[in-house]
This record gives sequence, C-alpha cells and structure tokens, in this order.
Amino acid sequence: MSEPDPPDLSPQQRAERTREMMFAEDTAAQHLGMQVVSIAPGQATVTMTVGKHQTNGHGICHGGYIFLLADTAFAYSCNSYNQRAVAAGASIEFLAAGQLGDELTAVAAEQHRAGRTGIYDIRVTNQSGQLIAVFRGKSATIKGQFFEEPQV
Amino acid sequence: MSEPDPPDLSPQQRAERTREMMFAEDTAAQHLGMQVVSIAPGQATVTMTVGKHQTNGHGICHGGYIFLLADTAFAYSCNSYNQRAVAAGASIEFLAAGQLGDELTAVAAEQHRAGRTGIYDIRVTNQSGQLIAVFRGKSATIKGQFFEEPQV
Amino acid sequence: MSEPDPPDLSPQQRAERTREMMFAEDTAAQHLGMQVVSIAPGQATVTMTVGKHQTNGHGICHGGYIFLLADTAFAYSCNSYNQRAVAAGASIEFLAAGQLGDELTAVAAEQHRAGRTGIYDIRVTNQSGQLIAVFRGKSATIKGQFFEEPQV
Amino acid sequence: MSEPDPPDLSPQQRAERTREMMFAEDTAAQHLGMQVVSIAPGQATVTMTVGKHQTNGHGICHGGYIFLLADTAFAYSCNSYNQRAVAAGASIEFLAAGQLGDELTAVAAEQHRAGRTGIYDIRVTNQSGQLIAVFRGKSATIKGQFFEEPQV
Repeated sequence: MSEPDPPDLSPQQRAERTREMMFAEDTAAQHLGMQVVSIAPGQATVTMTVGKHQTNGHGICHGGYIFLLADTAFAYSCNSYNQRAVAAGASIEFLAAGQLGDELTAVAAEQHRAGRTGIYDIRVTNQSGQLIAVFRGKSATIKGQFFEEPQV
Repeated sequence: MSEPDPPDLSPQQRAERTREMMFAEDTAAQHLGMQVVSIAPGQATVTMTVGKHQTNGHGICHGGYIFLLADTAFAYSCNSYNQRAVAAGASIEFLAAGQLGDELTAVAAEQHRAGRTGIYDIRVTNQSGQLIAVFRGKSATIKGQFFEEPQV
Repeated sequence: MSEPDPPDLSPQQRAERTREMMFAEDTAAQHLGMQVVSIAPGQATVTMTVGKHQTNGHGICHGGYIFLLADTAFAYSCNSYNQRAVAAGASIEFLAAGQLGDELTAVAAEQHRAGRTGIYDIRVTNQSGQLIAVFRGKSATIKGQFFEEPQV
Repeated sequence: MSEPDPPDLSPQQRAERTREMMFAEDTAAQHLGMQVVSIAPGQATVTMTVGKHQTNGHGICHGGYIFLLADTAFAYSCNSYNQRAVAAGASIEFLAAGQLGDELTAVAAEQHRAGRTGIYDIRVTNQSGQLIAVFRGKSATIKGQFFEEPQV
C-alpha cells in the first residue's frame, strides 16, 4: 500500500474501511450481485437476489448459493478487524427453500473470538422474514492486513 | 412425462438415467461448467475448473464455490435412486486453498441410507491430488421421481 | 399413565411438567449430578460439576462430558412441548478446557422449530463466565408424549 | 519422565506406546469400561458396553455417551504420533439408538493430517454391525509428548 497509515481509527471505522478494500477485490461477491449492506466489528449483513443461474435440478435455489451468501457474511464479519482471516470450516442447516427472485439476507454475528480462532453464526432469511438457513463458521486468522496500520 | 415407463432398469441404469434428467434441469451446475463425470448408486464424481468469477477477496477460490461443487456431487449421489432427495444440512472443512485455474474434483460416497435419511461424504481434490476440502451431507427424501417408474 | 389428563396447561406449565417427568427417567443426567435449573418452552439451563471420573488423558474434562452436558440441555429444550423429540445430529466447538471441579452451565435456546425438525444452540460456560464450548443440535420429533394431554 | 528415551521406534510401536501411556491417565475411559482394542498410526478402535447409568429419559443410550465413545476413538487416533493433540470440534449424526447392554465399537480413521490440524472419521456400530452413528472430529496439536523422544 502506498497511501500513508491512517490515523487512529475507531473499531467501526476500521470495519468499514476493511469492508471497502475487501469488496474491491471480491470478484465472487460482486459477480453474484451481493451487497454488504452493513458492517460492524464482528458483524456483517449481506444481501443477494436469487437469479436464474442459481437454481438447481429441483427448480429452487441451489443450496450451494445459500451457503455462499452465508459464507460471504461470515467472511466480512470475521475480517472486520483488519486482520486477515479465512474459513477453517462451516456447517449449514437448510430449513426452507429459496425461490427464483427471492431477496435473501444473511446476518452474521460473532459468538467467540480468542487467539487465532473465531466462531460466527449466520442466519439467512428471505424477503418475508422466513428463516431459510442457519450457518456456523469457524475462522482462523492468517498473516496480513487489508490496509496497513499498527497491529491492534 | 409422456414417454412410456422404462422396462426394468438395473440400479446402475437408474442412476445414469437420473443423472441425465437431473442435469438437464440443473442450471446452476451447467452455468458453472460442472461435469458429472461418473455416477453409480449412492456415488457421483463432479468436476469444476476455478474461474475468475469464483475468486474472493483473498485472491483464491471462494470457499462457497468449493462447497457448491461438493454439494453438487452430494446431490447427484443422494438422488441416484430416482427418488428425489434434498440436502437437510452439510458441513465442510477447508484444508487447502483452491487457485484460479485449478481443476477440482468432488467424489461423493454414501455412508448410510435408511428410511428417509442418508449420509454422504465428499472429498474435493485438485489436479495434483491434493485434498482441498472434506464435506459431509445429510439428505432427506421428498415426494417425486425424476422419471416415472414403479416405486422401488 | 393412570392419572387424569391435566386441565389446560400454559406452555410454561407444560415445559415444567415435562422436565419433571423426563428427569425422573433420566438415569444418565442424575448419575452425573446434573441439574435442570431452569426450563421454558424451547429453552433449558443445565448445570454439572466436573468430577474426577470425567477427566481424560490430558488431565482436563473429557470433551465428551462437555458434549453430554450440552446435549442434555438440548434434550430438555427440544422436549419442552410434551412432544417427544430425539437428537438427529449435533456439532460442538471446544473453545476452552474444563477443569476438575469446574461448575459448568449449559444454556439452550431454540433457533427454529417447524414440522418435525428443530435447531437449538447451546452455550457452555464455567463459573467465571468463560465460554467453554458452543453446540448446535438438530432434533426430530417422534411419536409419544411424556404425559397424556390432547395434541397441541 | 525418568525412564530413558526409547531407541528408534517404528510408527506402530510409537502408536502402541502412546496408547499405553495415554490410557493410564484416562480416568474417563477407564471409568466407563472402555477398551482401546486396536491402535495404529492415525487409527484406533474403542469398545464400550452400554450400562444402566448411560440411559436417558427415553430409556435408550444417552447420545452423549455415544459421542463420548466416538470422541475417545478420535482422541487415541489423533494422538497416536506421540504428539499431543486435542479436539477443536466435532460433529455427530445419530442413525440408530443404542440399547442397554449393547456392545458398541467405534472405529477411527484419519482423513487428513497437515500442519497442526487433522480430520478423523469415526463410525460407531453395535454387536450386530448396525451403524449407530457417524462422527467427524477436527484435531489441533498442542505442545507436549506422552513420552520423551526426539521430535519426529
């Protein structure tokens, strides 16, 4: 990064700046029309509209795309400290089908963060508020920041 | 279905015909260039090449697409009896990163099938044979067949 | 059951009566000195003190007993409607060790309940409030009640 | 340790010696009458008979004890390299009930081991060969050995 170190950032400012830099590189999320509509330390909300290319052999949203949406909310929440983190693993329970055209929202909330490990719970709902899936992700921090600042 | 009921099919023939009819409707798998390269009762192998639209903010294959590949192998294996089944839930452990251009292969193997429930294990490897992820899916059968035949 | 059907019970009364009848048969929980210290529809809190017989080869509480505690809170919460339910599956993340003599508390909260399936999240903490484990259980209802009353 | 360092051990000898030293401290497994009937690098088989104290409010083996048996096979398999490892997390799917008096067997097989992380799959069956549960554990190595030898 050639730009100067930012002055002291609040945790919320750090989360917002991380989201901005992360999304600029996030071809997958952009290509699927996802939006990271809110961000805070350890929290993120991401939306996606189910398109035709996301339906499967049963004529409903492929569960893999519901996972992908939840996984994206997970990624923005666990990276919100400007300390790069990756998914070590995740589980998902599918509770109701997503339909073509549905506007899905994934809300990620941190449950635990200590050492290099974090646990995040994500709920995916549709435009009617119906619960579509619950997701739990486990993160592991790796070396690197999204923008340079003194280690927090 | 307007075509006549098939005569007695072997389990392998049933699996192959189910794959064909399922793939014809599977917009998501087609759109991602996936191929169901082998099928057998309770087993399926699916391949995918990591494209640019599948990379994430870390410059590597979005974990959600690795899930989606594994989930597709899971779907073809648990539906191979011409009895529709959906994913009730799944878990994935990410063991190594997928890179742009990687040719990934997901191999699904049935662990258990009784009543309406099945358990399937999927291993995802890259072109060098490196293990990228392990996935476990739980299926639930629903009403319906892919093509009409007497209930097995 | 020889006793007469209870008159109309409130959901809270139903949960309390179910806990009472369930605990009377629950040899495993009794034998481990567990106490179901609170109950409500879809919620339960269970405590256990880590005894010498519960330590493992590393000299700390065997993770299996932490699972067992969480699983017990899960069981009381998902059965609190006087409709028998069993665990279909569960996952646990171990976040800190339990020590000999620790007083552990598992709090179960329902996330989803529809049809025959429920999802419950359980947090296990020690006497200092430290988070020891997070657990997610998936329940399936089966035939039967703990005490006779008209189907709700 | 006061005894001299062992001379060069084969992987199988190392696994056997680790089992011996680990079991000597494993109050939980001993107290439940578990036996580690076979061991090899990355593999372990553990047996347990379901006793009265392990039944729950449904009159069947508490799922927590089935987890505990699987978790024990997991522990012996992931520690078989004489490098201490602990469970980071696990998931279990319950497929059939265990009954009072059942002789259960848990067989653990390593799926992956790299860096500090391992993945182990465990199958629990009863005396008739019926599959009772499938378990997947994720291990993390920590500092320490069961007996002193040069780092492998």
